[in-house]
Amino acid sequence: MAVHNHTVSPDPLPPLAAGHLRSDLDLSSAELRALLDLAVDVKARPAAYATVLRGAIVSLLFEKPSLRTRITFEVAAKQLGGDSIVQTGPIGGREPVKDVARNLARWTRMIAARTFAQQTVEDLARWSGLPTINALSDLYHPCQALADMLTLREHWGAWEGRTLAYVGDGNNVAHSLMLDAARLGLHFTCITPPGYEPSETIVAAAREFAQATGARILVTTEIEAGLAGAEAVYTDVWASMGQEHEAIERARLFAPYQVNEELMAMAAPGALFMHCLPAHREEETTDAVMESPVSVVFDQAENRLHAQKALMVMLSAQIH
Amino acid sequence: MAVHNHTVSPDPLPPLAAGHLRSDLDLSSAELRALLDLAVDVKARPAAYATVLRGAIVSLLFEKPSLRTRITFEVAAKQLGGDSIVQTGPIGGREPVKDVARNLARWTRMIAARTFAQQTVEDLARWSGLPTINALSDLYHPCQALADMLTLREHWGAWEGRTLAYVGDGNNVAHSLMLDAARLGLHFTCITPPGYEPSETIVAAAREFAQATGARILVTTEIEAGLAGAEAVYTDVWASMGQEHEAIERARLFAPYQVNEELMAMAAPGALFMHCLPAHREEETTDAVMESPVSVVFDQAENRLHAQKALMVMLSAQIH
Amino acid sequence: MAVHNHTVSPDPLPPLAAGHLRSDLDLSSAELRALLDLAVDVKARPAAYATVLRGAIVSLLFEKPSLRTRITFEVAAKQLGGDSIVQTGPIGGREPVKDVARNLARWTRMIAARTFAQQTVEDLARWSGLPTINALSDLYHPCQALADMLTLREHWGAWEGRTLAYVGDGNNVAHSLMLDAARLGLHFTCITPPGYEPSETIVAAAREFAQATGARILVTTEIEAGLAGAEAVYTDVWASMGQEHEAIERARLFAPYQVNEELMAMAAPGALFMHCLPAHREEETTDAVMESPVSVVFDQAENRLHAQKALMVMLSAQIH
Repeated sequence: MAVHNHTVSPDPLPPLAAGHLRSDLDLSSAELRALLDLAVDVKARPAAYATVLRGAIVSLLFEKPSLRTRITFEVAAKQLGGDSIVQTGPIGGREPVKDVARNLARWTRMIAARTFAQQTVEDLARWSGLPTINALSDLYHPCQALADMLTLREHWGAWEGRTLAYVGDGNNVAHSLMLDAARLGLHFTCITPPGYEPSETIVAAAREFAQATGARILVTTEIEAGLAGAEAVYTDVWASMGQEHEAIERARLFAPYQVNEELMAMAAPGALFMHCLPAHREEETTDAVMESPVSVVFDQAENRLHAQKALMVMLSAQIH
Repeated sequence: MAVHNHTVSPDPLPPLAAGHLRSDLDLSSAELRALLDLAVDVKARPAAYATVLRGAIVSLLFEKPSLRTRITFEVAAKQLGGDSIVQTGPIGGREPVKDVARNLARWTRMIAARTFAQQTVEDLARWSGLPTINALSDLYHPCQALADMLTLREHWGAWEGRTLAYVGDGNNVAHSLMLDAARLGLHFTCITPPGYEPSETIVAAAREFAQATGARILVTTEIEAGLAGAEAVYTDVWASMGQEHEAIERARLFAPYQVNEELMAMAAPGALFMHCLPAHREEETTDAVMESPVSVVFDQAENRLHAQKALMVMLSAQIH
Repeated sequence: MAVHNHTVSPDPLPPLAAGHLRSDLDLSSAELRALLDLAVDVKARPAAYATVLRGAIVSLLFEKPSLRTRITFEVAAKQLGGDSIVQTGPIGGREPVKDVARNLARWTRMIAARTFAQQTVEDLARWSGLPTINALSDLYHPCQALADMLTLREHWGAWEGRTLAYVGDGNNVAHSLMLDAARLGLHFTCITPPGYEPSETIVAAAREFAQATGARILVTTEIEAGLAGAEAVYTDVWASMGQEHEAIERARLFAPYQVNEELMAMAAPGALFMHCLPAHREEETTDAVMESPVSVVFDQAENRLHAQKALMVMLSAQIH
């Protein structure tokens, strides 16, 4: 008879088939759900996972500045009984990415990398052979989307049949949200200024997933129509890291898409406000919305930790 | 019957009433004495405190460069059974301090911050709700003063009726020394060039404290009179971090206040020499004085560790 | 009866007579062999050494950028049951090296430093009194040479009577390889462009050691003659860190010394290719050679970890 208490280790998990989280596409729909179930348990019973990475060092590589991502991965590694080393600056500056990857494979057991190019994440995974996590790239932000889906389930109980509207730049965050929503049966509307739509390839992939779940994946430039019925409204900065030189042009184009109290009023009553942070108040959103009771932005931030711990637990099946 | 040995944990401590060390003023006189008593024990029996922060991650934030402060807090967290994450650069650069604070509160259990503005420390404490330690601000350097008071007690046995003279800029270090001295019955003389006196508000607060202890709090520009009878002479760099642009003007005004062998001769025979480091030899002091037998500057540096550990032990009462 | 298994701690080791590894010269020939024997055991049975540094914090100081050195020392400290703090930037910038050293001695138990000047390592050792490791200086790179000797033994079984040829700049790596080879009975040929020969003092020291072992220590500018019979060919970047301004002039002079497939063909059949990394492909070597089956560059990188752990185990005899 199995006896479960907060110090009992969980049953062994099947390894992720891809062995990595290079992008959201590395998770099957079943794996995505299993990972989010696990995240709930990791959050509720952290002590049960306190030795999963015992003796393992995780390589944390950051080509861009980071508060949430670096700290949550550092804390995650420690709370799982392992530890991490942090390297900042260009990956592949002093030597090719393939050499960096083969070095790290000799001393550490897992990689999480925040890169400019998606290709850098792919190369790290390929050449290191270590379980490799995309901690944000130009195309995807899968760890953020996992935290966000966890947050929505905490507030709603389930995703199916609800609607999440993303307003702003059709960027990496929008891509990852769309791919996860499609697989979880969550309707997703992406509202962008003309010319800032998400990748057509990724939209097509999301719609393919959505056929199995009934999720509706919409892409539009119409704010009011797009927001109708949305039970959560999500935005992100207008110019992501590396796009600061476009900030003035973007500010003009994106101004109507600011998620302020008028925009929130176009969504369903009581709709949640979401943001992956850092937020630029009075740009893509307002202080009033950020500080309002429907804002769940710090729940999202907290859930970065729990979702990433669950991911690392699943990937750890491959390192022992 | 209580059995005490070096592996027995100390009795639980009452939490600090303020719940923070935003400034020296957060400690009552009784709490200050209790903290310094505890520091003696933490230094003597480190193993007894080796699990106080088990599982807890401390956020260490540095807006200014740091050797002693960063390393002593990192080592302190590890020696108390916890660990830390370090963030350097402006707090509130990529997002407001209130957002940084609310993020950190979701992943970590305590904050120590070296800031330019005192307000930043106050905001971190207010918005995070975590026990928050001022690791140097423009107005206070309470951790340094705790280490210094511990050092003086080690050398003197007690503070009461002794005299500490501070020579130089009436800065954050002078403020914190004055506030602690006043509450411990230690006479304190602050000798500055005209125009560089300590804050009148803080002098008034120190004199208020001193009424209960009999400590004499003097502020003067007269070097020889000020040093008469001083049993310890303390100085600090003339231009603190962030004031480097004033260095030339200050060098001219502060030259007579250099703590060299002639100045030390104006103090009591055998007077200790103190400095919070880093020291600029042949500016605010000389190599001869720094390297003389009365110099206790590295004892002060060591005691940063023990005093901060004691502080973290007291604050940990609030995080479990 | 002694029972040995993978969780049994090894027998206590005699401390290193010098108490430091400021340069390769701090190791006697017997100590060098003992250290390399220990490295084999540390690599085979890491769990037996998992508490050697329990409770000890190692100071890691880096005046130059570092991937391999920083990460391997960080991982080494953790795998030995201790931990580390990392400080980057000039040592002796904000305060003299002698003050930095005396501060670190109060909080940490060992130092590893990557410096520009050898004198900085010497000063850190002298003033801290802590076991101090040269993690690369302008004159020596002893940790690299230890890893390389371990790598050669893994591939060859023994060093005696074999020949290692180093091609390129007669730099710190060449110096340390030469000093270790001489003491291990490994013939060593240093092939450099005219004007880039290794230090005459160090060559003389190596030849002195070689008298006891029969190792041949040759210094030449002749590529083909130098490579004849070499069973391993080693190169390094043409312009080391801090010499980047000489890169163009060096590129012209060093071009004939590029370790490409033609040069490898001048060595013994099956000769190993070695590089301390980072490698600049199509400069001092080629991608074809780097990626060829005889390339052992990542074995060398891995062995940095094991060799440094063995060194830290030997030095730990002095810190308890």
